[in-house]
Amino acid sequence: MKRYLFCISFNGTNYCGWQVQKNGISVQEVVQDAIERVVGFRGDVVSCSRTDAKVHANNFYFHMDLSIKIEIEKLKFAINNALPLDICLKEIKIVDKSFHARYSVKRKEYIYKIWNKNVRNPFLKGLVLNYNFKIDLEKIKKAAKFFLGKHNFTSFCNVKSDVQDKVRTIYSIDIFFDGDILIFKIVGDGFLYNMVRIIVGTLLEVSEGKIDVLDIEKIIEKKDRKYAGKTVKADGLYLNDVTY
Amino acid sequence: MKRYLFCISFNGTNYCGWQVQKNGISVQEVVQDAIERVVGFRGDVVSCSRTDAKVHANNFYFHMDLSIKIEIEKLKFAINNALPLDICLKEIKIVDKSFHARYSVKRKEYIYKIWNKNVRNPFLKGLVLNYNFKIDLEKIKKAAKFFLGKHNFTSFCNVKSDVQDKVRTIYSIDIFFDGDILIFKIVGDGFLYNMVRIIVGTLLEVSEGKIDVLDIEKIIEKKDRKYAGKTVKADGLYLNDVTY
Repeated sequence: MKRYLFCISFNGTNYCGWQVQKNGISVQEVVQDAIERVVGFRGDVVSCSRTDAKVHANNFYFHMDLSIKIEIEKLKFAINNALPLDICLKEIKIVDKSFHARYSVKRKEYIYKIWNKNVRNPFLKGLVLNYNFKIDLEKIKKAAKFFLGKHNFTSFCNVKSDVQDKVRTIYSIDIFFDGDILIFKIVGDGFLYNMVRIIVGTLLEVSEGKIDVLDIEKIIEKKDRKYAGKTVKADGLYLNDVTY
Repeated sequence: MKRYLFCISFNGTNYCGWQVQKNGISVQEVVQDAIERVVGFRGDVVSCSRTDAKVHANNFYFHMDLSIKIEIEKLKFAINNALPLDICLKEIKIVDKSFHARYSVKRKEYIYKIWNKNVRNPFLKGLVLNYNFKIDLEKIKKAAKFFLGKHNFTSFCNVKSDVQDKVRTIYSIDIFFDGDILIFKIVGDGFLYNMVRIIVGTLLEVSEGKIDVLDIEKIIEKKDRKYAGKTVKADGLYLNDVTY
């Protein structure tokens, strides 16, 4: 019995998120189905994270304990053949039994993509937020600095969350244009329910002049969701990578 | 009553093609619904082309005769708001009554996209053909030259086609890599049912060594579909533009 670490990327458009749910098809069950077809039994998976419905991942990790004899490259090839085209198995490696896909996470990096043109791109449906208003990038960057460091992020957490400890550390927020797409890249030790989407929504309201740059600090201090901006939709959100 | 020429782009993944059909949602009916919501009545549309299920378009044209007073830019804005995110209205202009979206077509340009990497890209699901074999680009380019000019393309037409005249002229075929995507760009005066997909499928079989470069000429002369290569799937096909 060895512990295998899997790295996948997926287009979340047609899924109810990573974790198995009653009301939709989850990435997890589709991945477990594919692995079961290859290895012949259904194994338990432990993932780095949950993801909301329609959220994407460029690098998403999970581990499984398996007693199998198949070579890693063949295993990867066979599982990819069994997966649908919107999920890709990028890498498999054997890790130490002390490694844990969730508890060993040190940092997570999320990306949020905004298509900022008048004419939308139909080939990016579900992959970006379509946002036509003029972006005040300098204002957004100034406001974003207030999120850096260790804070209680209650104001930036969905009220339905049952997590007790809402203190998280944000290491960096980079905001830049990649062609016509505005990218928010946020790195932290962990993120609360909808935290990235509420931070991005709040920064867009700063750009629009609805929230003042200097109010971000006060909104954090309030520890109350109602003072922050709207939750932007899931379409533009990508779990970009995890550092172990 | 004026004649309006509309240019749209659409992601065909979730549609049964442009034209209205019983067994699925067509781009045409969705576009007609959106325009009806804006102008208040259902107008007839005349398009540049039919498209197969799942085929995309970067620039697709249709005309409508309308008696309306709304400004063009406002009309465009309102229709885009009424359209789903996988269809985009790019331009509207008023044209002469002698203009006809179908009969005035002089040239059509199609693109076919192939993702040629071992690791697939889940964000291109439905937008490319995933093809892992090594591409022999020089061989494909040599073979492609035999399609240039005026030929009877019966061998490259779906047998279900009821078109009588199967003579078409191909003006150019360009084949090149754009990053990891192999692009086939084909310009002609018109194309038969599945013609681009059969040409691309045949050229891939040339690359694979299943069909000899010098056999293309013979396959054309046979005027029999069974001698050409397979029809590649619709996912990678885009009506790129039309010249009037």
